[in-house]
Amino acid sequence: MAHQAAAGADSGDPTVRPQDREFLRDFHHTSRYGATPAGGIDRQAGTAEHGQVRRWFEERAGQLGLSVVTDAIGTIYALREWVPGAPFVLVGSHLDSQPRGGRFDGTYGVVAALHAVAAADAAVSAGLLDPRYNVAAVDWFNEEGARFAPSIMGSSVHAGILDLEVALQTTDPQGVTVAQALESTGRRGVDPAPKAAAYAEIHIEQGRRLERSGVPIGIVDRSWHTQKLLVSVIGEQSHTGATLMADRRDALIAASHVVVAVEEVVEEFEPETIVTSVGKFDVQPNSPIVVPRQVDLVVDLRADRASDVDQARGLLLERLQGIARRRDVEIEAQDFDVRPVQRFPADGVELAEKASRDQGVDSTVLATLAGHDSVPMNRIVPSVMLFVPSADGVSHCEREFTSDEDMVTGLRVLTGVVTRLVAGELADTASGGSDESGGAADDREDGRG
Amino acid sequence: MAHQAAAGADSGDPTVRPQDREFLRDFHHTSRYGATPAGGIDRQAGTAEHGQVRRWFEERAGQLGLSVVTDAIGTIYALREWVPGAPFVLVGSHLDSQPRGGRFDGTYGVVAALHAVAAADAAVSAGLLDPRYNVAAVDWFNEEGARFAPSIMGSSVHAGILDLEVALQTTDPQGVTVAQALESTGRRGVDPAPKAAAYAEIHIEQGRRLERSGVPIGIVDRSWHTQKLLVSVIGEQSHTGATLMADRRDALIAASHVVVAVEEVVEEFEPETIVTSVGKFDVQPNSPIVVPRQVDLVVDLRADRASDVDQARGLLLERLQGIARRRDVEIEAQDFDVRPVQRFPADGVELAEKASRDQGVDSTVLATLAGHDSVPMNRIVPSVMLFVPSADGVSHCEREFTSDEDMVTGLRVLTGVVTRLVAGELADTASGGSDESGGAADDREDGRG
Ligand SMILES: [Zn+2]
Ligand SMILES: [Zn+2]
Repeated sequence: MAHQAAAGADSGDPTVRPQDREFLRDFHHTSRYGATPAGGIDRQAGTAEHGQVRRWFEERAGQLGLSVVTDAIGTIYALREWVPGAPFVLVGSHLDSQPRGGRFDGTYGVVAALHAVAAADAAVSAGLLDPRYNVAAVDWFNEEGARFAPSIMGSSVHAGILDLEVALQTTDPQGVTVAQALESTGRRGVDPAPKAAAYAEIHIEQGRRLERSGVPIGIVDRSWHTQKLLVSVIGEQSHTGATLMADRRDALIAASHVVVAVEEVVEEFEPETIVTSVGKFDVQPNSPIVVPRQVDLVVDLRADRASDVDQARGLLLERLQGIARRRDVEIEAQDFDVRPVQRFPADGVELAEKASRDQGVDSTVLATLAGHDSVPMNRIVPSVMLFVPSADGVSHCEREFTSDEDMVTGLRVLTGVVTRLVAGELADTASGGSDESGGAADDREDGRG
Repeated sequence: MAHQAAAGADSGDPTVRPQDREFLRDFHHTSRYGATPAGGIDRQAGTAEHGQVRRWFEERAGQLGLSVVTDAIGTIYALREWVPGAPFVLVGSHLDSQPRGGRFDGTYGVVAALHAVAAADAAVSAGLLDPRYNVAAVDWFNEEGARFAPSIMGSSVHAGILDLEVALQTTDPQGVTVAQALESTGRRGVDPAPKAAAYAEIHIEQGRRLERSGVPIGIVDRSWHTQKLLVSVIGEQSHTGATLMADRRDALIAASHVVVAVEEVVEEFEPETIVTSVGKFDVQPNSPIVVPRQVDLVVDLRADRASDVDQARGLLLERLQGIARRRDVEIEAQDFDVRPVQRFPADGVELAEKASRDQGVDSTVLATLAGHDSVPMNRIVPSVMLFVPSADGVSHCEREFTSDEDMVTGLRVLTGVVTRLVAGELADTASGGSDESGGAADDREDGRG
């Protein structure tokens, strides 16, 4: 799969430096932890496979001369302290994955962080960089939230928008708590988290805007406005084998029309201005010979503009009323997890543009549709978020792919961002913020994926 | 709810006899076991609530002078043996229910059986009936199959078409076996089942054909042809928060179109000739932020004529191909649980018509869309199956309803059927059979609900 850049490396292409080859070796090595037969990984937070890749991360950090600490929510920091007592530029992402997830999502950012930190360290040693801050590569605990909800857990605890005790007591579907999972994998840390001065993260785009435009680096200036709706469709339970069609009030048929309506509402908008989904869908009583009584489903609405999400929500609620009437069922819809647009600091975007130009690389500014650890971190320190292209725009699946060449380009730009941050370029920049003044509840929800 | 007939009873209406009042008192008493707030019952097989109503059944049988035995699959027989060594006319139904089920389905037939047996006993004592056979009221174990699949378990074991050991080792979703559930409710019997000579059952119709025609008694001459299809819709997992609509292969949207197609295929037939359903529907990975990878669902097709089911199946498979093509997903469909039309003996239908006329009551011959304990019993002894009207045709739900008047009419006709069977009227009649010669596998599947 990595044919193009690997060939470049083997043929001694002058643009591939030894440190790039080392990075690629490390990155591809991580894919063996929790590897799935179809070429993905399954490393849900707090599982044995997740513990294995994290052990590798610690060992590799040690080889690179970094010292490792783990905080109380199980986030691992690989530190390089040049300026005793100064705060840290944190550079990170996550090593956990969705079930049958892709091997690039999160892991690319952590391995790139390790190598960007090592490069900054080499620059300091060589007298090429005068550090104002220290630096650390970070593996945030439980970004995906596949096993333990909410997602983006470690960074939300770090940013103080998720309570540590609440996070530790969160349970998976089998009733295992985060605290128990951390203990069983030896990751229930006792170290204080290093104090942050700034944050940087690189991640696969998980969309196809970069791929289509042929631009290798995306610089994130904002996250999309998102919200969810919990929809309950309530019909009447009856016997599949005895109830005539006219006598039924089938919740599943009505809920199927809801799923179709959620997709069709997108047609009212310009292409790619909005995405809508139903990912969770539970049928009761879910027996082959009983006409379903109730379906509970979660609708996810995302757009760059809050007004588009609001309009889609309004159109959808109208259509749900029509379905309820036609199908003689009740449909209830409840808003939750409303997250306004978040802005990354403009100075950070400019800094990343400079770092791209330094490498002779084109960049483009775009929004992130998805949540990332950078979103809560951006609430407390100026944060810079970079994207590299995703093949076919797919992610959270085994076929996720980014080329070696694109990963190396991203690493170089990230390294430039990190050295600039270490030198103190954003020292006078405020952290980012939301388009709407949100209370504590909004803050909390920013941490969700 | 029971206003009409209760008023009749209170005002001393001459058509309501003391034994009818006793029956109604018993029937309404049973509704307290596993009662739900909305007026239904929840007495899944082998639960504490199910155990409570069965204890009542045994006590009441004892008061009526019957002796109680329990067989190895937990079916309870309340016996009256007038003719030592002669086989038994079994009269029964089931006291278990669906989750949040109705209080009439099954329970009406068991309580009516107790009182029909008591009436036959009184007739023998009074010298009005010369018994050729003995008689027993039967509460079959696990007719509904809501907790332990397959359904119609006790009578299928009795009829020899379901292996006792297989049935005992069946587990519920928590891994509890039938054997354990029977032990924990004290129902793991050691008695041999009484040898059957004939079988009679009365049940609510669970449809609205009787209600619409105003005829109080239905006599079942056949069961519908039925089959199921296991349908798997396979798309591609991706991130709801990052994957553009055009880049998705959403298994849930495709599966929703399948559910709609399953309903719409009915429009190709005359009204009420066919019923189609999807009751079971499982989404993977079922996370609010992941576009679903796969949906597995069970389609249920039923019609009076096998040719109609086959035609519906063919039309549906064509439509599934279209959905797979349009939505860029794979759809696999697998036939299972195919049950050809079963015929009840014509002599038994004639006997039931006579029993209705004896009571001055109209009757009509119809098919049963649903499975009942009478279906496997009809494979080994001549069986008679009666229906009483269901309000609005609904069942397997809390709003299920049959009036006291209709229940009393049914009890009287059932009593006539039982006395005629006890006298030996079907002694020379063969048991029923299937429209198609089925092998062992077909036999097995006849026992399913
Ligand atoms: Zn990620
Ligand atoms: Zn029943």
